[in-house]
Amino acid sequence: MEDCIFCKIIKGEIPCFKVYENDKVLAFEDVNPISEGHTLIIPKNHAENLWEISEADLHAIHMASKKVAHAIKETLKPDGVAVLQLNGRGVNQVVMHYHLHLIPHIPGSPELTMTAWELRPGDMEAIRQTAEKLASAIK
Amino acid sequence: MEDCIFCKIIKGEIPCFKVYENDKVLAFEDVNPISEGHTLIIPKNHAENLWEISEADLHAIHMASKKVAHAIKETLKPDGVAVLQLNGRGVNQVVMHYHLHLIPHIPGSPELTMTAWELRPGDMEAIRQTAEKLASAIK
Repeated sequence: MEDCIFCKIIKGEIPCFKVYENDKVLAFEDVNPISEGHTLIIPKNHAENLWEISEADLHAIHMASKKVAHAIKETLKPDGVAVLQLNGRGVNQVVMHYHLHLIPHIPGSPELTMTAWELRPGDMEAIRQTAEKLASAIK
Repeated sequence: MEDCIFCKIIKGEIPCFKVYENDKVLAFEDVNPISEGHTLIIPKNHAENLWEISEADLHAIHMASKKVAHAIKETLKPDGVAVLQLNGRGVNQVVMHYHLHLIPHIPGSPELTMTAWELRPGDMEAIRQTAEKLASAIK
């Protein structure tokens, strides 16, 4: 897609620090890394988000994520890896081309913001009703 | 696995607010929800994390995530959905059975902590070296 920075990276019009590539996906380092080894995996076919991406491309993304996660584990010896994927402006998706973040946590480094939240029990009746609504909307 | 709360949910020994199920995965509402519609998807075969889960189960999880994300969109009208999956104590994985979080953001509600971070350019030479190390460790 014209004017999509990730499509330009795929076409080689903008350089990247490549980690892995196959016919369906490209993995490269985030140049605004949250931690060492912060890697993005994107589909070569432009799709904005989880709603739009094809099942074949989604499959390829996650098979690649396993390869990259193993390489991160072996190379960087993290004590954890957060996998994050944002869909929509309301959750601060910035580049509107599907991308999966792999964010390692290196022992001793600060807690990652995406992994810190307080566990607070919800309203069980409200949760039950939401589950029913969602279940009945599954296609 | 004995003493795994998610395995007990799968076996029906602990109840859950179910959203979706097939032969490989179960989706249900998080009872400590970060937002309305906070849903977990887990594999029925116990696996601790992304390194351990089989490719077939990983595929099933993400195909299910597309179904659930569509149901969330249709039902709750969020302005975004964050997809998060934590691997390891260092990123605050609490239940050591692979689980994918789908966390909707409802318009007007507070920003989700997992989607808020400052974009700060990294050290390009360090990033280049990390990319090389990771690329050479891909199997």
